Amino acid sequence: MKYGVVIFPEKKIQDIANSYRKRYDPHYALIPPHITLMEAFDMNKADLDKATTHLEQVAQNTTPFEIAFHKVSTFHPTNNVIYIAVKENDAIKNLHEQINSEVLYHQRAYKFIPHITIGQKLPEDELHDIYGRLRMVNVDLKNQVDRFHLLYQLENGSWTIYQTFLLRG
Amino acid sequence: MKYGVVIFPEKKIQDIANSYRKRYDPHYALIPPHITLMEAFDMNKADLDKATTHLEQVAQNTTPFEIAFHKVSTFHPTNNVIYIAVKENDAIKNLHEQINSEVLYHQRAYKFIPHITIGQKLPEDELHDIYGRLRMVNVDLKNQVDRFHLLYQLENGSWTIYQTFLLRG
Repeated sequence: MKYGVVIFPEKKIQDIANSYRKRYDPHYALIPPHITLMEAFDMNKADLDKATTHLEQVAQNTTPFEIAFHKVSTFHPTNNVIYIAVKENDAIKNLHEQINSEVLYHQRAYKFIPHITIGQKLPEDELHDIYGRLRMVNVDLKNQVDRFHLLYQLENGSWTIYQTFLLRG
Repeated sequence: MKYGVVIFPEKKIQDIANSYRKRYDPHYALIPPHITLMEAFDMNKADLDKATTHLEQVAQNTTPFEIAFHKVSTFHPTNNVIYIAVKENDAIKNLHEQINSEVLYHQRAYKFIPHITIGQKLPEDELHDIYGRLRMVNVDLKNQVDRFHLLYQLENGSWTIYQTFLLRG
């Protein structure tokens, strides 16, 4: 079964992200707008308790923190994703590293760059056209992070919540 | 802002429900298959802490329990919903009543009938045709309930998780 760990930003930011995702992100209907803390990974149901104990410990030791979204950016040419970027921030980087450790350690192919995807799987010319316009958008949003969630994926590709972890550090 | 309280049954049951919802439920993309414990209600963000404290207390006092799904049924002629029915069960009824009390008390228009919606907003003749076939399906599924979730609704009608409550009674 596939699991993932995410932050959902506050409603206002999700609504803004969805106004773009609706047009540019084929995953629009599969999951609400989110910041991925841990990419989809395979795990046996038997290991679920160990994983939630680990995540509970991470949450206990993490103090709630603020993040700022400051621009629209893209991972092109690595991949054709357009995203709302989180301003460089040690707290969220640490949270990612804490989660991605011990029983949940997975080697990452890429450096962790926290973001909300608003467009993906776009044809090259469309990507350039859309990004050319969206990079001019003035993004200045703040969000308090006081929780994260463990999700699992259904057969149709959509994601369901398994558990919330409140930051209590 | 609109909030709701739900149980997500285990993945296998969600996948079965989705195989029907994909064709018969226009809410298919808005929320994973679920049992509603508390219908959508309006709440100010200022009251959110009181609500989560209440839900946490309910969860603390509730022992995990099993439910059984035993047939496909319909609310017709009250409304054109087709659903997978939960066998009569005091534990889930009590959980519903505990949640729907104190700060979260709302008067209900209908009796609480726990179910997973698999079809809705169907034209009358289609409803009869689909229900005529689905009522013959042999449903015999069990599910352990050890948690419920508080969700909120985005502007596009989809639902995001706010918090999980683990039954610890």
